[in-house]
Amino acid sequence: MSLPPITEMLLAAKKEKGLSFADLEPIVGLDEICIAAIIYRQATASAEEARKLTGALGLSSDFVAALTEYPVKGLGPLVPTDPLIYRFYEIMQVYGLPLKSVIQEKFGDGIMSAIDFTMHVEKEEDPKGDRVKLTMNGKFLAYKKW
Amino acid sequence: MSLPPITEMLLAAKKEKGLSFADLEPIVGLDEICIAAIIYRQATASAEEARKLTGALGLSSDFVAALTEYPVKGLGPLVPTDPLIYRFYEIMQVYGLPLKSVIQEKFGDGIMSAIDFTMHVEKEEDPKGDRVKLTMNGKFLAYKKW
Amino acid sequence: MSLPPITEMLLAAKKEKGLSFADLEPIVGLDEICIAAIIYRQATASAEEARKLTGALGLSSDFVAALTEYPVKGLGPLVPTDPLIYRFYEIMQVYGLPLKSVIQEKFGDGIMSAIDFTMHVEKEEDPKGDRVKLTMNGKFLAYKKW
Amino acid sequence: MSLPPITEMLLAAKKEKGLSFADLEPIVGLDEICIAAIIYRQATASAEEARKLTGALGLSSDFVAALTEYPVKGLGPLVPTDPLIYRFYEIMQVYGLPLKSVIQEKFGDGIMSAIDFTMHVEKEEDPKGDRVKLTMNGKFLAYKKW
Amino acid sequence: MSLPPITEMLLAAKKEKGLSFADLEPIVGLDEICIAAIIYRQATASAEEARKLTGALGLSSDFVAALTEYPVKGLGPLVPTDPLIYRFYEIMQVYGLPLKSVIQEKFGDGIMSAIDFTMHVEKEEDPKGDRVKLTMNGKFLAYKKW
Amino acid sequence: MSLPPITEMLLAAKKEKGLSFADLEPIVGLDEICIAAIIYRQATASAEEARKLTGALGLSSDFVAALTEYPVKGLGPLVPTDPLIYRFYEIMQVYGLPLKSVIQEKFGDGIMSAIDFTMHVEKEEDPKGDRVKLTMNGKFLAYKKW
Amino acid sequence: MSLPPITEMLLAAKKEKGLSFADLEPIVGLDEICIAAIIYRQATASAEEARKLTGALGLSSDFVAALTEYPVKGLGPLVPTDPLIYRFYEIMQVYGLPLKSVIQEKFGDGIMSAIDFTMHVEKEEDPKGDRVKLTMNGKFLAYKKW
Amino acid sequence: MSLPPITEMLLAAKKEKGLSFADLEPIVGLDEICIAAIIYRQATASAEEARKLTGALGLSSDFVAALTEYPVKGLGPLVPTDPLIYRFYEIMQVYGLPLKSVIQEKFGDGIMSAIDFTMHVEKEEDPKGDRVKLTMNGKFLAYKKW
Amino acid sequence: MSLPPITEMLLAAKKEKGLSFADLEPIVGLDEICIAAIIYRQATASAEEARKLTGALGLSSDFVAALTEYPVKGLGPLVPTDPLIYRFYEIMQVYGLPLKSVIQEKFGDGIMSAIDFTMHVEKEEDPKGDRVKLTMNGKFLAYKKW
Amino acid sequence: MSLPPITEMLLAAKKEKGLSFADLEPIVGLDEICIAAIIYRQATASAEEARKLTGALGLSSDFVAALTEYPVKGLGPLVPTDPLIYRFYEIMQVYGLPLKSVIQEKFGDGIMSAIDFTMHVEKEEDPKGDRVKLTMNGKFLAYKKW
Repeated sequence: MSLPPITEMLLAAKKEKGLSFADLEPIVGLDEICIAAIIYRQATASAEEARKLTGALGLSSDFVAALTEYPVKGLGPLVPTDPLIYRFYEIMQVYGLPLKSVIQEKFGDGIMSAIDFTMHVEKEEDPKGDRVKLTMNGKFLAYKKW
Repeated sequence: MSLPPITEMLLAAKKEKGLSFADLEPIVGLDEICIAAIIYRQATASAEEARKLTGALGLSSDFVAALTEYPVKGLGPLVPTDPLIYRFYEIMQVYGLPLKSVIQEKFGDGIMSAIDFTMHVEKEEDPKGDRVKLTMNGKFLAYKKW
Repeated sequence: MSLPPITEMLLAAKKEKGLSFADLEPIVGLDEICIAAIIYRQATASAEEARKLTGALGLSSDFVAALTEYPVKGLGPLVPTDPLIYRFYEIMQVYGLPLKSVIQEKFGDGIMSAIDFTMHVEKEEDPKGDRVKLTMNGKFLAYKKW
Repeated sequence: MSLPPITEMLLAAKKEKGLSFADLEPIVGLDEICIAAIIYRQATASAEEARKLTGALGLSSDFVAALTEYPVKGLGPLVPTDPLIYRFYEIMQVYGLPLKSVIQEKFGDGIMSAIDFTMHVEKEEDPKGDRVKLTMNGKFLAYKKW
Repeated sequence: MSLPPITEMLLAAKKEKGLSFADLEPIVGLDEICIAAIIYRQATASAEEARKLTGALGLSSDFVAALTEYPVKGLGPLVPTDPLIYRFYEIMQVYGLPLKSVIQEKFGDGIMSAIDFTMHVEKEEDPKGDRVKLTMNGKFLAYKKW
Repeated sequence: MSLPPITEMLLAAKKEKGLSFADLEPIVGLDEICIAAIIYRQATASAEEARKLTGALGLSSDFVAALTEYPVKGLGPLVPTDPLIYRFYEIMQVYGLPLKSVIQEKFGDGIMSAIDFTMHVEKEEDPKGDRVKLTMNGKFLAYKKW
Repeated sequence: MSLPPITEMLLAAKKEKGLSFADLEPIVGLDEICIAAIIYRQATASAEEARKLTGALGLSSDFVAALTEYPVKGLGPLVPTDPLIYRFYEIMQVYGLPLKSVIQEKFGDGIMSAIDFTMHVEKEEDPKGDRVKLTMNGKFLAYKKW
Repeated sequence: MSLPPITEMLLAAKKEKGLSFADLEPIVGLDEICIAAIIYRQATASAEEARKLTGALGLSSDFVAALTEYPVKGLGPLVPTDPLIYRFYEIMQVYGLPLKSVIQEKFGDGIMSAIDFTMHVEKEEDPKGDRVKLTMNGKFLAYKKW
Repeated sequence: MSLPPITEMLLAAKKEKGLSFADLEPIVGLDEICIAAIIYRQATASAEEARKLTGALGLSSDFVAALTEYPVKGLGPLVPTDPLIYRFYEIMQVYGLPLKSVIQEKFGDGIMSAIDFTMHVEKEEDPKGDRVKLTMNGKFLAYKKW
Repeated sequence: MSLPPITEMLLAAKKEKGLSFADLEPIVGLDEICIAAIIYRQATASAEEARKLTGALGLSSDFVAALTEYPVKGLGPLVPTDPLIYRFYEIMQVYGLPLKSVIQEKFGDGIMSAIDFTMHVEKEEDPKGDRVKLTMNGKFLAYKKW
């Protein structure tokens, strides 16, 4: 999986600065996943967000224009091979239909938006092994009939 | 997508009884998604859970044995065509790599388990449109080196 | 491409009654494409719409329950082989990226909803050959940042 | 998705000039989608259109020859990963067969041409959220028998 | 490759009658390939053509309605495995781009219609081995700009 | 679809010389499609044909050796996205099986060779729209039994 | 991989008779692979061959007609999963290009026919382990230029 | 299909020397297909074979180390598009299952090795057209049970 | 994934008898995985093994013939969706190339046989969580050169 | 299959030093497969492991940072073409379901972890041919219900 050159440069600058995505949260004013999505060119930054981000990473403002462009989204192969990413594919394969049934029962025919959508990761410390807590929050969109 | 006959029968009985997945929660003692996963044969019920579930649905105990068997899991085509399920595929396509970076930064090299894992759906009422709140919670598994 | 049995039965009844999709518009109170989508089990009817539709087709009310269930959507192979349907795939292949650029320029980063969405077909008579006029109308959904 | 170098150069020039696709409409004398299709090398410009376009973008006439060549068309992967483009794939998956039935009922056995074809995007302002109105207009081609 | 039941029945009746596709040409008033396409449910018969065809095959008129319906077209797997059919796939793979260049040079940017289209097979006797002569004839459709 | 560098150079030279494929026919002594196939490296030129072709294009004889090498053939993706080329794929999808039946009925079990094969394009002027007339001629090869 | 019913019946009869494919060679007058290909409906029998084969298997002559029909050929998935069959796929993957170079060097640009083709299997006894000796013999077909 | 740079260099040197694969047989002491497989980096040369081969091609001994490395094998797309190579894929598709049945009947459950394996091509002159005679010879490996 | 009917019957009988695969080991005289492979029709039983197995399961000897037939092997989709089976696919994806390098360094160019091969599963009790210990043992097959 | 540049450099250095993966075991303090996985960028080294490894290979410490980054894992095509790697795919295809049944019978519903996992290769000398002994050891993870 080859990343866009700008992503490589931003990640390298972030590494050199020793900043985590979480460190960038208060600087950019966005959730760390959202910041990561901007860096991976899966989300569009506003000019101000781009300035704050490139500023924090010690990069010239030349990057601002590029980060505010609308990217062609979608990062990977049809079925992801990276184990961490694959687990989300597996959750969709195994729990997709049960989840559909429960959401529809609660909300009617429609979908959870992946656009009017936020996602947040937390580390839940646990003596038996820390846990990843992932919260997705998407607007329910009911099918319109006409 | 053709469902296993036992799934069709359980869904029909559930419909006739007028029970929602949420109604089954206190009866079976499991989360509604987990119950839906059992009905869709993506999860294995214990004998007791199966008895409670078939009892609530007014079905004979003949189904208990089938529900306690270990299913071959995975429900769908390589890329899901159903819009509700596809959105989870899209989230993995668009946010998969950003999410990987954030999780790894917080936890090190490893994955969020899709096995030692729970998922919960809530309806968040909102005047601008209700929202689906989905919480995933999976144990972090660090890569072992040897 | 095998259709669900209920679709086969509804289409046969519609044929026997000699009713077009357009004839059903005033009876069901929906656009003909929307009615076709219900018949092909790609959209969910309300109980009242289902009653009107089955009534018009001279079918028993046994079908009403089935038509109000939430279907697993998506009808075909990855790449459609039927020439009429393929042309829409081709339009997406050839004009997808230009269209994306124009929509984003007009609206910002986001998508046209395929859920809060309507579609309408008209026949435009033309001495050089009649034309299909297809109007799609979908809510613009802006990417949320968080 | 890597774009042809000429596309990259035209888009960069367009950006520097601060021109939208809509701004180019009166200059080039074509619809903005058609202009975008020329820039993305999915449509062939006439020499005059190419001159007008490169002139407006402040580019040398060296590009004219390239823009009048017949491109190999089709931009993407089998199933698009970009959410905006995917929605058109989804519309084809979900509404393709209903649409086929309605078009055939109105016109007979044949297709809507994707060649003798135009497409137009409008922004429909709406207090509940602006809407994308997309109009496609294609000649109906009846199957010839022989 | 499983054929539609009606195709199986028509082929069986044709065999029993000892009629070739060529024998059916004067009876149905269509080219033998067109008749074969009707039998394989890849083309729609008019009521009269269907009556002539079923009459010649000694079948009841019950088949007439089915043969006049608009079929979902496309017969096979993505890449055909049957050697005779594969050769046409190979011709498209090997000579597709050269052919595109020649057609475009002669006609401009556009396509050869596969809808306003006829095809004819002849046997060319040759002492070094008989030859298949296949003539395709499709209307050239120029890309419309707008 | 990226072309071999030699193809790019030959096409550029041909363009500069203002020669059509048809213009090259009498010079090279081959049909224009065959010449196009040589230029796209889908066919092997003899040394003499290569000399004539490079001579006509004003290119040095350095290209002769390359054009006489046996290429690895096959130009495109599994399913072509270019509309002009796709139509030939569609013809194979829709008419492949009818064609197989007619050829076999005329010749017995076997195939039309795509090797001992010629193809020719003509422009058929027609007031209702010019037509592409494509003639394929391939040796019939009967299945050998042993 | 589901076999055609007629194949299942012929294989069952062959088993009951205790006849090997080799035993059928002198009876049918064909090589055992050719006989197996007829049984698996990958080759067409002549009426006489079909009579000899069904006679040897103690089957009624009802099967003769079916065995003389031209089958749609090709038995399996894109990439075979059966290890014995896969090894031939692997040979093509690993040695395909070397083989192409050697054949072309010996014969010129063309192919080995898979139609005017025979194949024969022998068991070569060897103290270090018996060996499968497979001989393919196909007519060389030179690319025609025109 | 892009070849490894070392393959390109070896083929160019071989061409310049005017040596055929067959000419290299006595020099390298291996069958021409085996030599071709080494050149295409599908087989590993011993140091001595590599020295003989590079010596004959007039290349420096720098290539020896590279030719003795173990390559990642497998040259092509899932389904080969080159007609010469495709025919071997077709033979596997059409005759794979018949061949499996014959081999198993002669040897029991197991496979023909593609590793302890040799392959040889001969030109069989024939007034009706020369023939390619290809002999494969692989050790039979019986399935072990345990 | 639909199993062959005989597999369903054997599994049902095994369940009714309350026998584990491990319980069948001393009865059939094979490792439990090998027995499972016979039941899933991925391995061929000898007549004696089949008799012992069907005897233990209380089934008639009618099954013996079927179990001694050579199956077409390979159970699943290209990429397995079942999480337990997928992990073995993932191990091949992630560790396949490292493993290849280590095996080749130890043994030379060749493969580990999957035919002359055994596999054994053990449960390793561990207070931090039991472990699956899987031992594969396959003959090394060196590439033959010729 | 193109390797990351750092992998190429590490392998070249390892070759020049004449070190096997096994030689690196005591130096790096890890199993040779684990070291190979680090070199192929399928596993993350600790800073200390990276220093030991680059030290042994005589490389500058510039590589240390790169080797401690978390790679995107997964090396190959959907179905591997290299014969050595394919055999592991084949084992999963043929024995995947039997193995699942045996593991589940011993452990309950769950999986063998591919993360909390080790793998070890040994050479088992055998007069009939040396054998590859591969031991996998993964934590069993039981499906959580909730």
